[in-house]
Amino acid sequence: MSAAKTNSGRFFEDYRLGEVIEHAVPRTVQGGERALYHMLYPARHALHSSDAFAKDCGLAESPLDDMIAFHIVFGKSVPDISLNAVANLGYAECRWLASVWPGDTIRSSSEVIGLKQNSNGKSGVLYVRTTGTNQHGAVVMQFVRWVMVRKGDLDAPAPETVIPELVGAVDASDLAIPQGLDFTGYDFTLAGEPHRLGDYTVGEIIDHVDGVTLTEAEHMLATRLWQNTAKVHFDVTSRPDGQRLIYGGHVMSLARALTFNGLANAQVMVAINAGAHANPCFAGDTVRVWSEVLDVAQTDAPGVGAVRLRLVATKGGAVGALRGEDGKYLPDVLLDLDYWALMPT
Amino acid sequence: MSAAKTNSGRFFEDYRLGEVIEHAVPRTVQGGERALYHMLYPARHALHSSDAFAKDCGLAESPLDDMIAFHIVFGKSVPDISLNAVANLGYAECRWLASVWPGDTIRSSSEVIGLKQNSNGKSGVLYVRTTGTNQHGAVVMQFVRWVMVRKGDLDAPAPETVIPELVGAVDASDLAIPQGLDFTGYDFTLAGEPHRLGDYTVGEIIDHVDGVTLTEAEHMLATRLWQNTAKVHFDVTSRPDGQRLIYGGHVMSLARALTFNGLANAQVMVAINAGAHANPCFAGDTVRVWSEVLDVAQTDAPGVGAVRLRLVATKGGAVGALRGEDGKYLPDVLLDLDYWALMPT
Amino acid sequence: MSAAKTNSGRFFEDYRLGEVIEHAVPRTVQGGERALYHMLYPARHALHSSDAFAKDCGLAESPLDDMIAFHIVFGKSVPDISLNAVANLGYAECRWLASVWPGDTIRSSSEVIGLKQNSNGKSGVLYVRTTGTNQHGAVVMQFVRWVMVRKGDLDAPAPETVIPELVGAVDASDLAIPQGLDFTGYDFTLAGEPHRLGDYTVGEIIDHVDGVTLTEAEHMLATRLWQNTAKVHFDVTSRPDGQRLIYGGHVMSLARALTFNGLANAQVMVAINAGAHANPCFAGDTVRVWSEVLDVAQTDAPGVGAVRLRLVATKGGAVGALRGEDGKYLPDVLLDLDYWALMPT
Repeated sequence: MSAAKTNSGRFFEDYRLGEVIEHAVPRTVQGGERALYHMLYPARHALHSSDAFAKDCGLAESPLDDMIAFHIVFGKSVPDISLNAVANLGYAECRWLASVWPGDTIRSSSEVIGLKQNSNGKSGVLYVRTTGTNQHGAVVMQFVRWVMVRKGDLDAPAPETVIPELVGAVDASDLAIPQGLDFTGYDFTLAGEPHRLGDYTVGEIIDHVDGVTLTEAEHMLATRLWQNTAKVHFDVTSRPDGQRLIYGGHVMSLARALTFNGLANAQVMVAINAGAHANPCFAGDTVRVWSEVLDVAQTDAPGVGAVRLRLVATKGGAVGALRGEDGKYLPDVLLDLDYWALMPT
Repeated sequence: MSAAKTNSGRFFEDYRLGEVIEHAVPRTVQGGERALYHMLYPARHALHSSDAFAKDCGLAESPLDDMIAFHIVFGKSVPDISLNAVANLGYAECRWLASVWPGDTIRSSSEVIGLKQNSNGKSGVLYVRTTGTNQHGAVVMQFVRWVMVRKGDLDAPAPETVIPELVGAVDASDLAIPQGLDFTGYDFTLAGEPHRLGDYTVGEIIDHVDGVTLTEAEHMLATRLWQNTAKVHFDVTSRPDGQRLIYGGHVMSLARALTFNGLANAQVMVAINAGAHANPCFAGDTVRVWSEVLDVAQTDAPGVGAVRLRLVATKGGAVGALRGEDGKYLPDVLLDLDYWALMPT
Repeated sequence: MSAAKTNSGRFFEDYRLGEVIEHAVPRTVQGGERALYHMLYPARHALHSSDAFAKDCGLAESPLDDMIAFHIVFGKSVPDISLNAVANLGYAECRWLASVWPGDTIRSSSEVIGLKQNSNGKSGVLYVRTTGTNQHGAVVMQFVRWVMVRKGDLDAPAPETVIPELVGAVDASDLAIPQGLDFTGYDFTLAGEPHRLGDYTVGEIIDHVDGVTLTEAEHMLATRLWQNTAKVHFDVTSRPDGQRLIYGGHVMSLARALTFNGLANAQVMVAINAGAHANPCFAGDTVRVWSEVLDVAQTDAPGVGAVRLRLVATKGGAVGALRGEDGKYLPDVLLDLDYWALMPT
């Protein structure tokens, strides 16, 4: 028998600052993936649902949902970055830079931008900037994430500690607007709600009302679709409790889709400023979401504004409740995501 | 916190006779949706399975399954019509008027054609005629349905009672035949059965034999695909019994697909005369179907006849058993659907 | 009531040596089916994932996964061949002869090449050679399988016993290489592993490490997608134990996909020499796989070699363990498949 040909994943001591890792298995996405996204999530934002609506907004056709790009670029990084990760600690500086169209082929690479061994000597924090590129070589998205990775050889020397400087939030002036996007002829009736950027107030909290109870089959189908094969999502023997952990990105897509009711006009995700998977999520949980308006901004594109939102997914608890008196996330909070979306002004 | 931006649905007193409601979120359908239909239902009718077979029947390519159009047009009406519905009471005058092709974008609107407040003053019956339109403005299908809707304000005055006159069944001469359809060169071997229109006798009952046991994941995937987000299908907390109610249209599609064995040549649904969701359906139920031939007719298209069928889906009970001595549906009957389909003569 | 129009399947005495049975319902496959394959199985072989990668290997675009062709051709044969089968006994001489591209329409037919009534007089072994053809009339794949079929009329005379001569394994020189395939510019980094044909040694055993726990919904979706409607996979009332038997082909596709980790460069399946579904598989089983290298060979195509592999799927037990001391498959072995795949030299 030989395990020599199989990938058991990298350990903390295997990463070098500045190293660029090309992730395997490029993926072509088409209309099929668009259809699947609508089957897997209650996604109703009109720009991603209708070619006709997208054309009326200045685009050639309906681009693939922004989270599809995220899942593919992220999923490809799993075998090289997080196979031996103990925890997914955070996201920053995530920006969508070019739309993904049916027929595009996406590949992914990561640069090691920070390393810090933990004081226990058994693990360390790895910071990478992951980049997704299309078949023309254009960058479609980029994000920083940091994960805690086990050491394989506890005797390996600690690397020099380098913690990257990351902005707290993407500046509104740095948001990339999809080429040609124009909301001056926006049809609010077809989009589903009358609320424009000016109707949202910083500090406002929106209860998105709807809930979805999760099943094992659905989260596995969704996670597998993006070729994310981390075994903890698929194999009941991989956790001591015999449960399949639901991929955090599944909760992100579900939560974003559920915001339709109240944020139907937040059509395009353009940046993630920060994100935390606050508690693990399992089949049987009923997920609900609420949003808080954090900021609003204008953009250069005609009729296009930007809204910065906190999106919180829970499996219970009150709307607006996020952290306990100890400053820690409440046990029912699943996701706390800070992002920018484009909306008609 | 604000619920002001979310849609809590209309109540009975919010509808006005003659009002036309444009439903939100147009949807582009493609080959992906066709593939999904074959994954979600045991659909085998050759015209919807094979481009080559469809070409041999005079069509440009395989059109999307007729029920896909129904689900999309229906699904879009849910947030405006049936979010506060107590019951889906019936269908009538449903006709498919133009094929839906990969790449088409479908939108939906409903006209209020009848209102009748119930004597208890707490709810009323709303009649709407719902119309699906493609990106060229052509009507792809139309149907009447009536639902019982709660009143939000019990003190709101009752509207004048108007009950629309509806035909008991679509006349065979009013069936819309897909442009170009020609069954003169029909290949019965490839279609799967030798039975042509003349082989079916009015009053004949067909046991379609096969059964399918339902799962939670599958019905949620199917219902979500058509952007029908009525929470009772997805959220276990929305019913007192903690069960997810299966969307009635899911049973319709499953039942229609199961008729293949015995009605493989009933290729195209062209009208629904009446329909009742006789009892609720839940995961774990094993669905079987039987059909009764109600009528046969000729059409003007070459080689194309029409068969009117009663399609009954059950979760048990004998083939042919529909109502008890009290005239009510037997408890195992899930669906009683009266429709017209096209078949080679 | 009439069962006269429904297909209850053929019995052993209904087959005649030399008879060719055209199977019903041709199927057009597109990008949607490709997307679904990636959702249903952890498939990551780059040639089937990326149009760009396929182009760099000399192909026009990414062909559909080889197992999609197998499932469709096989699925169409079920109503005519194995509806009354007691057991699926074996496969031989399976060769993929032409790639299947998005837009192709596949049909299937079977020739009866052998018959042998069992000594108990109640059943017999039926040998068929099943052929899949595309819309241009080109053969896309061909395989022999033999099944044990019940007799319907125990008094029917036994046919003359004819057992076809089948080769033990497809000769490497008989493997059909996809038109244009060229691995001289193969990108091992994008493919995911550095191992080329020369790195594999006959007798080497590879533990593919990953496991997947099966659910009811997923195997039903997958089986239904290929229009395989054998009731034992869908209807809990069809077996005495109330369990849905998982389609053996589902295990084949899952097993093949799981070989990525260790055999990422075994890009194309070109032949199956033999195959056995050693034990039944049910939802809840956690499937793991191991491979044994049986042979390696060169081909005429530039840079393209062939590797013959034994692929074993299990629901437990040690890597490399296949049969007990009695020569029978161990109870945890699900699949034993002997196949040829193409790999860069």
